Amino acid sequence: MKKLINRPEDIVAESLEGLAISHSDILVVQPGARFVRRRTLGRGKVALVSGGGSGHDPLHAGFVGKGMLDAACMGEIFTSPTPDQIVAAINAVETGAGTLLVVKNYDGDVMNFDMAAEMCDHALRSILVTDDVSIPIDGRSTGARGVAGTLIVEKILGAAAEMGWPLDRLMILGERLVAQTKSMGVALTSCTVPANRTPTFELNDDEMELGVGIHGERGQTRVKLDNADAIARHLVSKVLQCLPVSESGDALILINGFGATPLIELNLMARSVDQAVRHAGLRPVRYLVGNYVTALDMAGCSVTITLLDAEIEALWDAPVHTSALRWGC
Amino acid sequence: MKKLINRPEDIVAESLEGLAISHSDILVVQPGARFVRRRTLGRGKVALVSGGGSGHDPLHAGFVGKGMLDAACMGEIFTSPTPDQIVAAINAVETGAGTLLVVKNYDGDVMNFDMAAEMCDHALRSILVTDDVSIPIDGRSTGARGVAGTLIVEKILGAAAEMGWPLDRLMILGERLVAQTKSMGVALTSCTVPANRTPTFELNDDEMELGVGIHGERGQTRVKLDNADAIARHLVSKVLQCLPVSESGDALILINGFGATPLIELNLMARSVDQAVRHAGLRPVRYLVGNYVTALDMAGCSVTITLLDAEIEALWDAPVHTSALRWGC
Repeated sequence: MKKLINRPEDIVAESLEGLAISHSDILVVQPGARFVRRRTLGRGKVALVSGGGSGHDPLHAGFVGKGMLDAACMGEIFTSPTPDQIVAAINAVETGAGTLLVVKNYDGDVMNFDMAAEMCDHALRSILVTDDVSIPIDGRSTGARGVAGTLIVEKILGAAAEMGWPLDRLMILGERLVAQTKSMGVALTSCTVPANRTPTFELNDDEMELGVGIHGERGQTRVKLDNADAIARHLVSKVLQCLPVSESGDALILINGFGATPLIELNLMARSVDQAVRHAGLRPVRYLVGNYVTALDMAGCSVTITLLDAEIEALWDAPVHTSALRWGC
Repeated sequence: MKKLINRPEDIVAESLEGLAISHSDILVVQPGARFVRRRTLGRGKVALVSGGGSGHDPLHAGFVGKGMLDAACMGEIFTSPTPDQIVAAINAVETGAGTLLVVKNYDGDVMNFDMAAEMCDHALRSILVTDDVSIPIDGRSTGARGVAGTLIVEKILGAAAEMGWPLDRLMILGERLVAQTKSMGVALTSCTVPANRTPTFELNDDEMELGVGIHGERGQTRVKLDNADAIARHLVSKVLQCLPVSESGDALILINGFGATPLIELNLMARSVDQAVRHAGLRPVRYLVGNYVTALDMAGCSVTITLLDAEIEALWDAPVHTSALRWGC
């Protein structure tokens, strides 16, 4: 295992400290409490709080700032934050208009955010993100995981909250967004969890793992490595099977790297995905390309498609000022 | 070799095509000519043109846009652009106020940009970036290489050009910037050039390579892998040895990933570097952290320090609107 770290047990705290040092105009790391909050709170707006295990940087701490999250609670690597941690974050940013939680659909996250919600006595609602199309929903599983689409949900809800939307209206928007946002990923390598020191799974030099999550968990199928155009066609077709029919035909496309995939490859994938999406009859009118929802040092990428209408498109375009996403500010 | 690509010989063209598709509001890829130019040119301003081999994304094409480059000519992977290519780019963005070339100090780049300059008949000057402190300057070598500091030179000159500075004044600023900007890098892995299919060099699991460039070339020394704090102290001390004495004590710090290093590690390095820089008596007042000047899929990072004064700091803060750097717009 080769990483730029000190002791494995200090990675999360030291990395958050570095984030706060390099973006002190945007955010504050609460010492000891393991959450990140906006430096300047928007008084009277609904507070947007998210979080989850660390190792997906810049998700979630890198999305704290004007027009996006008010606070992010970061657990240990791939480990849910504790209810206490979440309550502390909520109390630090709640200013009277209520709190909306954005939770990725994993058992631990759902349980701990639910417990935290019960410990708070002000208006509080919760949006569950379930954009991964690779795990079939049946009676036994938790259902679709929350993966890269989480950033789209956080950006658009953040814009609406910044504009003063009330909690109930944000809930309706959030549920619509979750229904209109689907993702699927492919891994070329595993990641290595620092405390474990060895890769979580092994892939041969000619193999890729389709339908991976963002924790180094095994994917849906292991197949021979294919070229970018074929990978894009496969991911786009699986994602589109799970999306409702689009009224406008307009789509937001996120080409998300898993941490170790260089931009030259992600840009190339943008071309391949664009062709596949247009072939399917959609118009990609907005793009985001980069390593945004990662799995430590995993190589690979996911494709997320969000169906757009005029309202959602305007909210996506609205100003955002975080360490990882910034425009219009 | 595992990469998200189609044919190795199409990577550069397809990746630039993807960049243009996903950022059509900012830039245009000239079909067949292998250069990227701003969609909307700033008439009457000095044109800023850079370029070099591909594989360092987002450098240079990702820095084309308002407040930074007017055009970038991209060669094949780690291969200089041709003089014809550079001339075409210059002619596409020259609007009468002259052209400033930003050239990284490599024999091929210097030769081809010089030849291109001779083929142009309008006012044209050239800034040579030489920020890498790891190669000693002696009679035999070309001198210090241009590495991650190139982005700082391009950002600050781009801001000044956007404000209408004339060519002579930009030259003086550029030379001052180059003297005040120094870098050093460390690699944890080699990169793999797609056409070669195997890593350029091999490093054992307990080794790192100090003083690497951005082409997978061997570094200055190979040593045992150390922790982040020790690596930061070493890089910062080497960089500071080559910088002049700072008058203000203020510094801009770039923690640059080489392509395969996840943000969680770069943020952690920001903390380590901040401690080392403060220990040396400088105040880090501006930070940039991310994978900006890469070597394909190499893991590792470099530290760049630019000494700031009020003028350079204001130019760094000035609006920029490119695919890879964006603020104030």
